Amino acid sequence: MISSKDNPKIKELIKLHQAKYRKETNTFLVEGKHLVKEAFEANAVIEAYSIDEIPGYTLVSLPVMKKICKTDTVVTEVALCKINEIKPLSDNILILDNIQDPGNLGTILRTAKAFKFDTVIISKGSCDLYNDKVIRSSQGAIFKLNILNNIDLLSFIPTLNDYEIYGTNVRNGTDIKDIKKEKKIAIILGNEGNGISKEISNIIDKNIYIKLDNMESLNVSIAGAIIMYEYINK
Amino acid sequence: MISSKDNPKIKELIKLHQAKYRKETNTFLVEGKHLVKEAFEANAVIEAYSIDEIPGYTLVSLPVMKKICKTDTVVTEVALCKINEIKPLSDNILILDNIQDPGNLGTILRTAKAFKFDTVIISKGSCDLYNDKVIRSSQGAIFKLNILNNIDLLSFIPTLNDYEIYGTNVRNGTDIKDIKKEKKIAIILGNEGNGISKEISNIIDKNIYIKLDNMESLNVSIAGAIIMYEYINK
Repeated sequence: MISSKDNPKIKELIKLHQAKYRKETNTFLVEGKHLVKEAFEANAVIEAYSIDEIPGYTLVSLPVMKKICKTDTVVTEVALCKINEIKPLSDNILILDNIQDPGNLGTILRTAKAFKFDTVIISKGSCDLYNDKVIRSSQGAIFKLNILNNIDLLSFIPTLNDYEIYGTNVRNGTDIKDIKKEKKIAIILGNEGNGISKEISNIIDKNIYIKLDNMESLNVSIAGAIIMYEYINK
Repeated sequence: MISSKDNPKIKELIKLHQAKYRKETNTFLVEGKHLVKEAFEANAVIEAYSIDEIPGYTLVSLPVMKKICKTDTVVTEVALCKINEIKPLSDNILILDNIQDPGNLGTILRTAKAFKFDTVIISKGSCDLYNDKVIRSSQGAIFKLNILNNIDLLSFIPTLNDYEIYGTNVRNGTDIKDIKKEKKIAIILGNEGNGISKEISNIIDKNIYIKLDNMESLNVSIAGAIIMYEYINK
């Protein structure tokens, strides 16, 4: 049993609380039985840690576990995971332009998986994908999706030759009800406060909007969900 | 200009950071120009405060403003607001059974208003409605909705004689696609981790579900949004 916080392995794990080290090592931590199970199913686990004796897990003391974890609640399992390899693009793509809130990002990933938008492109400068709050609110979707992270959208979007590319706009655009099913589609969601950036708006010419009553806009994770749900059910 | 944090008015405002005082006084604070504007439009403002000289606002110093506000970012306006009077129930009702996350609650209110579920019933034991994060994420919907707060659902729900009452369930129920338009409808959303409580489930006999691909469930604010969107567009 590892009971020292100075154990070199444990020190490496704790370093992963910082985005810098996650990037350097291409690894990240997930906390809690549910997420560890999802990580195992996705073959993403490098090493798993538990405060209980479980075959295949490294046993650690409770104080060490508390040190490894970022959540305040008591967690009994943690896994060191490797970042997914990139797969070919799926027919439905979601593109995220500068999403900043970890809860929004995680929720968007969870919804994208549920509605078969199996590839998600995340722009440079977005909220860190491996932030613990993103991982928790993604509810395991982070392991099931094909995620391209830290992407320069201005150079990436023009490479999507055979995709219909739609922005989202609270004022102008085609009602999502009137969008037809495409062979391949890419839908862009923008920043919480400012929407899609001007540079990106300039290179796309189609926009989707959702009719609202007496409210200016929806939360980005809500708007994205309704668009994906409506599209996938066409 | 009020420049002392010991000014009795300011001390009263700061007390409103605690839920207990909001309940006692039936008042709450909103921060930021956007929300203060919404509060004025809803005739909810008792007194408004600003660090700039604006007619009708009480002038306060920047340090006093920082003390009044809960957000870390610099806010120039704050308003003391009265809690809405209750109006007759609308034809579309949303019932929230033990929602705990402030971001979820605020987002649900914002979406309810956008999709014409103009009355929202919030159960006893839910996240505090006048929590600053709820107010911010509601984006002003808190002023536009008819909200019945702190309600004992077990005694309230049976009074909804002329409403069709639907629960939500991740496994069993009628696909939201197949729900027909009702004259009056009440839709219940449950707790983030556990869904609708057993006691409530026992007194309702209809459930809605949303078909998902390879994910167990959606975030409650997402599920609620899709249900309301789909229903209102029938």
